[in-house]
Amino acid sequence: MGFDPKSLTFTDAGLIPAIAQDAETGDVLMMAWMNAEAVKRTLDTGRVTYWSRSRQAFWVKGESSGHVQELVDFRLDCDRDCLLVTVRQTGPACHTNRRSCFYTAVRDGEEVELMQPMS
Amino acid sequence: MGFDPKSLTFTDAGLIPAIAQDAETGDVLMMAWMNAEAVKRTLDTGRVTYWSRSRQAFWVKGESSGHVQELVDFRLDCDRDCLLVTVRQTGPACHTNRRSCFYTAVRDGEEVELMQPMS
Repeated sequence: MGFDPKSLTFTDAGLIPAIAQDAETGDVLMMAWMNAEAVKRTLDTGRVTYWSRSRQAFWVKGESSGHVQELVDFRLDCDRDCLLVTVRQTGPACHTNRRSCFYTAVRDGEEVELMQPMS
Repeated sequence: MGFDPKSLTFTDAGLIPAIAQDAETGDVLMMAWMNAEAVKRTLDTGRVTYWSRSRQAFWVKGESSGHVQELVDFRLDCDRDCLLVTVRQTGPACHTNRRSCFYTAVRDGEEVELMQPMS
């Protein structure tokens, strides 16, 4: 079945959450948002492209930092309202310079930092 | 640092997306939503508990189906606006009876089904 980005279910703001997972390690790296055009660009270019809600602009991941995400596989969920992209991540995915944005755990009621920024 | 669910960043509807990942295989199983109380209940009980937007009710995953998610680790992202729970998943995570909700890939412009329902 041919895939049409418009067949996805978007929020009222026209967005869909996209989870980025490291294709090699399986680590979940980040979650950000795409609109239909960002989905199309991601598939067409193989460069993962989000929609920045704060800047209201397309955000080709790594375009300025060099920390690009090369698309390995593109998946959608049963409700067509969430995406999973497996990626080859260059360097850190997080703006804090950590490999993953999910570097804080809650254990025994306390926040624990699991990762250091990459050098 | 002590963790307070209210310190998370919620949508206008008071929700935060939560990604569930299989603690053993690393597979991303599903994404659903929590409110502050669901976060608290998840941490207090060790049973992953979402907020059902359609039913407007707490949704203790697997309560009716038996396909429970036992919490292994609870993480938050750098912006405190997305959660990652690693879980021990009993049976399928998806309501279609598949292990993961992300069973559809887009490859060469076509939708491809990667997983069969569990028997």
